[in-house]
Parts: sequence; structure tokens; C-alpha cells
Amino acid sequence: MSPQMRMITRASRLLSGVAARSEAFVIIVDPLKRFGAARTMASKVLNVDNLNPNVLKLEYAVRGPLVIRAAEIEKELQKGAQKPFKKVIWANIGDAQAMGQKPITFIRQVLACVSHPELIEKSDYPEDVKHRAQEILNGMGGKSCGAYTQSHGIELIRRRVAEYIERRDGHKANWQDIVLSGGASNAIKNVLQLFCKDVDGKPSGVMIPIPQYPLYSASLAEYGLQQCGYYLNEETNWGLDISELERSRDEYMKNVAVRAIVIINPGNPTGQVLTRENIESIIKFAHKHKLFIFADEVYQDNVYAEGSKFFSFKKVLTEMGAPYNTEVELASFMTVSKGYMGECGLRGGWMELVNMDPVVQANLYKAISAMLCPTTLGQTAVDCVARPPQPGEPSYELFIKEKTGVLDSLNKRAKMIADTFNNMEGFSCNTVQGAMYAFPQFQLPARAIEAAKAAGQAPDVYYVFKLLEETGICVVPGSGFGQRPGTYHFRTTILPQPALLQEMLDIFQNFHKKFTAEYSQGEKLSL
Amino acid sequence: MSPQMRMITRASRLLSGVAARSEAFVIIVDPLKRFGAARTMASKVLNVDNLNPNVLKLEYAVRGPLVIRAAEIEKELQKGAQKPFKKVIWANIGDAQAMGQKPITFIRQVLACVSHPELIEKSDYPEDVKHRAQEILNGMGGKSCGAYTQSHGIELIRRRVAEYIERRDGHKANWQDIVLSGGASNAIKNVLQLFCKDVDGKPSGVMIPIPQYPLYSASLAEYGLQQCGYYLNEETNWGLDISELERSRDEYMKNVAVRAIVIINPGNPTGQVLTRENIESIIKFAHKHKLFIFADEVYQDNVYAEGSKFFSFKKVLTEMGAPYNTEVELASFMTVSKGYMGECGLRGGWMELVNMDPVVQANLYKAISAMLCPTTLGQTAVDCVARPPQPGEPSYELFIKEKTGVLDSLNKRAKMIADTFNNMEGFSCNTVQGAMYAFPQFQLPARAIEAAKAAGQAPDVYYVFKLLEETGICVVPGSGFGQRPGTYHFRTTILPQPALLQEMLDIFQNFHKKFTAEYSQGEKLSL
Repeated sequence: MSPQMRMITRASRLLSGVAARSEAFVIIVDPLKRFGAARTMASKVLNVDNLNPNVLKLEYAVRGPLVIRAAEIEKELQKGAQKPFKKVIWANIGDAQAMGQKPITFIRQVLACVSHPELIEKSDYPEDVKHRAQEILNGMGGKSCGAYTQSHGIELIRRRVAEYIERRDGHKANWQDIVLSGGASNAIKNVLQLFCKDVDGKPSGVMIPIPQYPLYSASLAEYGLQQCGYYLNEETNWGLDISELERSRDEYMKNVAVRAIVIINPGNPTGQVLTRENIESIIKFAHKHKLFIFADEVYQDNVYAEGSKFFSFKKVLTEMGAPYNTEVELASFMTVSKGYMGECGLRGGWMELVNMDPVVQANLYKAISAMLCPTTLGQTAVDCVARPPQPGEPSYELFIKEKTGVLDSLNKRAKMIADTFNNMEGFSCNTVQGAMYAFPQFQLPARAIEAAKAAGQAPDVYYVFKLLEETGICVVPGSGFGQRPGTYHFRTTILPQPALLQEMLDIFQNFHKKFTAEYSQGEKLSL
Repeated sequence: MSPQMRMITRASRLLSGVAARSEAFVIIVDPLKRFGAARTMASKVLNVDNLNPNVLKLEYAVRGPLVIRAAEIEKELQKGAQKPFKKVIWANIGDAQAMGQKPITFIRQVLACVSHPELIEKSDYPEDVKHRAQEILNGMGGKSCGAYTQSHGIELIRRRVAEYIERRDGHKANWQDIVLSGGASNAIKNVLQLFCKDVDGKPSGVMIPIPQYPLYSASLAEYGLQQCGYYLNEETNWGLDISELERSRDEYMKNVAVRAIVIINPGNPTGQVLTRENIESIIKFAHKHKLFIFADEVYQDNVYAEGSKFFSFKKVLTEMGAPYNTEVELASFMTVSKGYMGECGLRGGWMELVNMDPVVQANLYKAISAMLCPTTLGQTAVDCVARPPQPGEPSYELFIKEKTGVLDSLNKRAKMIADTFNNMEGFSCNTVQGAMYAFPQFQLPARAIEAAKAAGQAPDVYYVFKLLEETGICVVPGSGFGQRPGTYHFRTTILPQPALLQEMLDIFQNFHKKFTAEYSQGEKLSL
């Protein structure tokens, strides 16, 4: 068997044999290209030479090569392989229930009733569960979750989402501007796609933070849109400096029509929560430069730090008054995958469109109509989140207990993780004000950087691969999100349950001491 | 209020106020462009002048202007408007449960248990339901449907799909080549997108039937791929002539790199079922011209006509032997939305990839990873369809009764609808061998064609609008699917329940007699 064919065999095996949370194949594709294996397949009708180059280019680190290796290790352990650890600890993806978080009972009872309406008659579920399920069924074709809904979702649920936004912001929301979607990612991609057109002879581009959630870099690559990165300021807890926005835009405008800006608040992977003043400045910046705002607000329920508070872009925009409230175009995204509910697998989300040109909006609605509709059961979960049980209703007490239980625990874990890293030599970790991640910076001994170079890996990748092989801890290297050149980070979730998280942090400390001792030979590291 | 602003107001209202099954906005966008209303919005950052032109171009007739009007009429009736009819009869979309088809109990019980696993302990559901739900939960992260799965789906369910294909075809299927998806549409778009690259200086194109299911024309437009239409032969019950494929390809190859061919079998909107010999010729054609095959086989369970049988492209390919079985690249698509289950709202489907270049496959898997995963509850439905209850299991008898009940009834309705249209003067309707639609041809009096022209509508559109306004029957004009110039068709589903379908056909006959009398003044029409 030639080396090329061995690579292909290995690629094929990896393609499919990996466990959950281990999806991307960057590691496979690159070596194949390097080995020239693609040549051997040139007889194929569809091959690497005539494949959509944007697909070839896109990468999604959260399910990247490290995660594939972690899944392999998990399988090896199951087969009895001897390792210095007994289990893989998954801290690579914001998948709360996979890490043991219990689902909210109300949501699941409503789902069961909508799935099998006989339960409305025959079960002993609380009355508000049954009533809710019946209401939702009444909004479905043939009163069944098996029927298509409108492409932008069931009217009843869009109205509920508008009411949720009104309660959250204290301002009117128009249900006709709400679009339900299969998670936020779908909706984000649908709106990004609208910008695919050269303007003034230049390719269109979108400003995204560095570090960013790689859905954005992947989708921009997929659509052939230009990435215009702006750096978050690690010194000010990943604050967003307007001077940096101006610098970035100025630079990119030389060759790119910069048309939109993405803000992730609370931040992923960085965990900051923007102040109201900061949001106002961003809105002014967007207005000044005629930028469409993508407000990725999927972590709006995940705010932990004292003094931090979530303000939606819509709320701030509205309260700023003219000309901003009528002129700044905005899409805000939300999901049932995060927050206290963590219902990643159900694929439910929504977006609110503000000040969008009605013709553009009509075209967007037309484009999503060919995809028929978001899943009815995902929409059902959206309904439960948009209108959770209210005081006095039978499900209220349990709901509040479960919700606060999850959020309190996440709050503690957010602190625990930042404190631990800040106590480690050579580490520095900003306060996790919100979201579900820490993005600590760490320093590497010169010899470790050399070793990484010799291994053909970025230094942060080298470090987290070592971490994985020696401890079973799976985090994502900073280079998957973007970081200032010469700095090294990784993203870890705060999602392992408290005992496991403590164990993970203890193991991590030991690993880091050992790693540093091995590579530094007395070199002093500080951050 | 200016005419432009009235149009916009109307557009905005229509955008959102329409009922289920009424999603597309072609009617809105076109008049707005015609009225120049877009100009009034030029101050918007994102406007019709700098919008992605592919989005502007795409159309999806199944949820088009006629359907929007039908929804308006339904709302008018609810408000007490007096019309010559009391209800809208929806025959525009293959949405079985919306038209009263009962869901399969086994699927819904499993869904309820997976949604709320307490039911596995506490309900009196059959043991095989509980066992199945537990198996599926065991394949999910944290044993919860709230966790993400692999992007190509849960391994257990991919294996079950492979086994289903093996039973269906009598040949090996590799579970690692199965990709679960949110309905077939998603998977089709993911594979189409791979072809977005110019080849030999020409834009890439895909052969699609005329008439076709408009997902294809919409997606090709969205991706900037060239539509290369080939006509189905209405004379031979919508047969697929190889000479026509050759003619079409020859013509398009002048300016287009024709790289793939779409076959819909059983046919949508045309209802034909391809013979094995026909499939063999198509495979030879694809091999000769190096075309990738898209086999849209979502209606594989919906075969009614005596002598008709479903053969999958995979089966025929395999049995043809070398060089076809190893060289022809194929993607076959399936869904839980059609067949006997009709679970459109759950968004579950799969594709099987055959002979795909492993590097291309790795890139496809990488691309879908950024979208995280198809819905876990849609995957659950896929599992139930891939491995339905077996003889001896507690749910078997009810399952078989429900399944054959649905298919027998569809079978009767398929005959009823074709017979009725064939008995109508000026109508001709091919046998509905399979799928869920009839696509009858009808002749129009010269004066009706003139009246349509005067109204600025295509004659078939004019006819079905009249039908809707006078009877409440909602079907989709043939021009939304494509038809030979000078011929007129519409697509109707066979999905209204028998009594309603009979009522619909009676009303239709009366309408057509009246329409013909009104416009023909004795002109003799025949087909």
C-alpha cells in the first residue's frame, strides 16, 4: 500500500469512526493534499481539483483535528489501552447536556406531549404543560408536529418571541420581524449570504472579532466573503476599542467593501460582557460607516460577573433615539442551545430583524422558503423559552429551581476556572463575565516553541495536543479562534460538572508544571 | 401614501401574516421592483442594489404567490367573508399530515420517550418502544437529545440506515458513507454546493428534469450554478429518453461545464416510476459523460401502479458491475417527510454517498461540521424508519396496519385523481405510478390565453388563480416546475383525505366546465 493510499484509508476510517463531538477533518484534508494523494483520485468526476475552492478553504476548529484525536483516544481506552489517565474530559464545545447538565423538565414534558398528543389526555403531566402543548399543536398544520410550518416559523411562536423581547428590552418588538430557525447558525448564514456581491468593484467583507467563534470564519470562507478581523483588547478584559475598529476598517477598505460587523456579546470564546457605553459606541461606529450589525447574543442568559449586565443591541439602539433607532440595520440572534436550557440537539433558535429594507427582507424570506421550515420540535422548545412558566402556574416552582440551579452552578464554575488559571505560573485568564468559556493566555518556554516548530505545529496546538495525550483533557487551541501573533491561548468550556471540573483543573496544573519543567530548564516565565 | 409605499406596506403585511403552507414572496418582490420601490430604500445599508443577485433570482413556486393569495382567502373566510365556497382546499404541497394523515404511532411514542426519558420508566408504552428509545439515548451525548451529535449523525442510526439499504437492495452498504440530515433538501444543497467552480473556463452546470421539483432550480440559482434542463417525455408517461439527455447535454456543453445530473424517481411533480432498464441507460449516459448522479429517491415507498417497482440507483449500479459499480459517483437522498410516515415537520433525512473521492467526502464532512448537527429528534425518526418494528415485536401489528392503511389509501387516491382528470374534456393526465402528485395537462381556449396575456399572467397561472378565487382549490401552476412551451399543466397533490378529494374533484369538474364555456364559445378542445 502506497503512503497516499494509507492516508486515504486512514482518512476514511477517521471520517466516520469518531465519537460525538469530533467532527472536523482539517487534519485529514491537509495531509492528503500534502501527500499528493488527491492526484490518485483525479479520475473521479468530482475531485479536489474541481471542488468548490471555498469548501476546501473553510475550517471549523471546534470540531477540529484535536477533537478527532480525542475521540480516537476514547475508543482506545474503551478497548483497554493503558494510558496515564482513565477518561477523556471534553471541554472543547459548548454542549452542556453532553457534560451532564439536566434538561429543564417543562421543556421536555411539552416536547413529549407535542410529539405524542395522547399524553395530553392520558398523562399526569401538569396542566400548564398540557395546555401549552395543545396551544402549540393548534398552531401546526393538521394539529401535528409532522406538518410543515411557515418557513419563518409558527405565527404563535413568533408572537411569543416578540413578547419575550419586549419584556427583556422594555420596547416594542414586531413579531413579523422574527424568524425562527434551526439554531442560530442557520439564521446567521442566511443573513451573511445576502452580502455576496461586489460593491464599487471591491469584494464585500464583514468585520469579525479576533478571537471569534469559527462559524463566522467558516461561513465567510464558504460564501467567498472577505474576513476583516478586529482585535479584542485582552488587557481590558477583551474590551472592544473603537480605535481598533477604525484601524481595522481603514486598513481593509483599501481592498474590500466592508459592509457589516459581527459582535458576539457575551463573548465567545472570550467570555466578556459589553457595557452599555461600549455598545453605544459600536452602534455609532456602524452608523458612521454604514455597516449592518450582526449581534450574536446567544449567551444573553449567561451573565455571571458582579456588575456585568446584558444589554441587547436592539434595546440600546432604541434608546439612543434618532438617527440610530431608525437607520441602523441589525440582526440579533438567539438559540435554545445555550443559556440555562442547553438544548443543543433540538436545533431551535430565532433572529430579530431591525430596520431591514422590506424588499431585502422579502427576498430573505423567499430564500428560506425553499428550505421549507425549521423543525417543529425545535420551534416548540423556542416557545417554552420565549414564554417560560409564570408565577402561579403549576410548573413554575420546578422551572425556577432548575433554571437558577444551572445558572448558579455555571457562575461558580466560571469563577473557579479563572481563579485556577490565574494561580498557575505563566498563565493569565480574564474574568469569565459571561457565556460558557475561558480563553486563558499562557506563555511557552523557548524550547517548547522550537519543539513545536520541529513537529510542524503551531506552539499552542503543540501544547494542547501534549495536554490531550498526557491527561485526556480536550480543549481547543487559540489559533482556531484567532489571537495576536506571538500569543498563545486555548478555549476551555466551563461545562464539566463541578467535581469533574475540579479534577480537570488539578490534572491541568500538574501537567503544566511538568511541561514547563521539561521545556524551560529554569527559564523564568511570567505573564 | 404613494403607490410604492402602498406596495411596501402590502409586502410587509404579506411577509408575515400568511398562514402555514404559504411562504414564498415572488409576487411581492417582482411588483416592488416594477414599481421602483426599491429606489426609495437606497439609503439602506443593505438594499436591492447591493443584495446577493442569486438570492434575488431564486424562486420557489411550491410556496409561491398563489399560495399567499390562498392564505389571504382563508383568513378572509375566517373573518366571515362571503365567497362561492366555504374553505380553501390545499393541494399545493406534499404535506400529508397537514391534510389529515395520522402519524405512525410507533414513531411518536419513541419520540416522546426520547424527549422525556422518564416515560421509559413510567409509561405503559410497549416494550419495544421503550427499548428503542433507550438505545437511541445511549447513542447521544450525556444520553440526552439535548446534546449535539456528530455532524453526519449518530453512529447507531447511520448503521441502521446502512442495514435498511442492504435489505432494500440486497447489497452491502457502508455506514460510513451515510450522512444524516435535516430533511433531504439540506443534504441535496450540501452536495450541490461542491460543484461551484468553473471548469475549463466554463461555469459548472447541473442537468435537471423539466418539469422538476423547484428546490433544484432555486438551489442552482442560489449557488450560481447553471441549470441544464432536459425534458421528460409526457407521451411515455413522463419517461426519460436518453436521446433527449444527449441533446440537452450537447446543447449546454457549448457554454457550460455539465458536471452532474439530477434524477427524481419516483417523479415529482410527474409521478412516474423509472424502469430498471431506463435507470441502466441513465447510468451509462452518466458514465460516458463523466456526470455525478443526484438520485432523489425520497418517494421510494410511494409506488402504486401495477407493474411499477422502485429500483434504487445504487442497486442498479451495483448489479451492472464493472466499470459502473466502481466508477459512477452517486449521492442518493431520502427523507422521513414522504413515504407512509409523512413526518415533514420533524426534519429528518439521509443521503448515501457512493464512489465519492475520499478527499471530497472529507471536505464535505468538514463543511457540514460548522453547522453542528441535524436535529436529534429528526434523527430519532430516521431510526424508526430505517428499522421499523419487526414481526413478533409488540408494536409490529399496529405499525403494519397504519403503514398499509396510508399506502393503500394513497394508492386509491392516485387512481381516482388520474381517472377524474382523464374524464374531463380538454384534460390529459398520466398514470400516477408513484410519489404524491398528478401533473395533468390541460388545453385552454384561445380567448382564455388572450385574457391571461391582458392580465399579465402566464395562461396556466391565470387558470389556477381563477380556480382558487372561484372554488378555494389551491394547486401550483406548471410554470413553477417547467413545461414545454405552449403546454399548460398544474401540480396537485393526492393528499386530501378521500372524501375531501372527491369533493375537490367534483368542484374542479364544475369549475372547468364553466371556465371552458365562458371562454370557448363553442371552440372544440381536445388533448
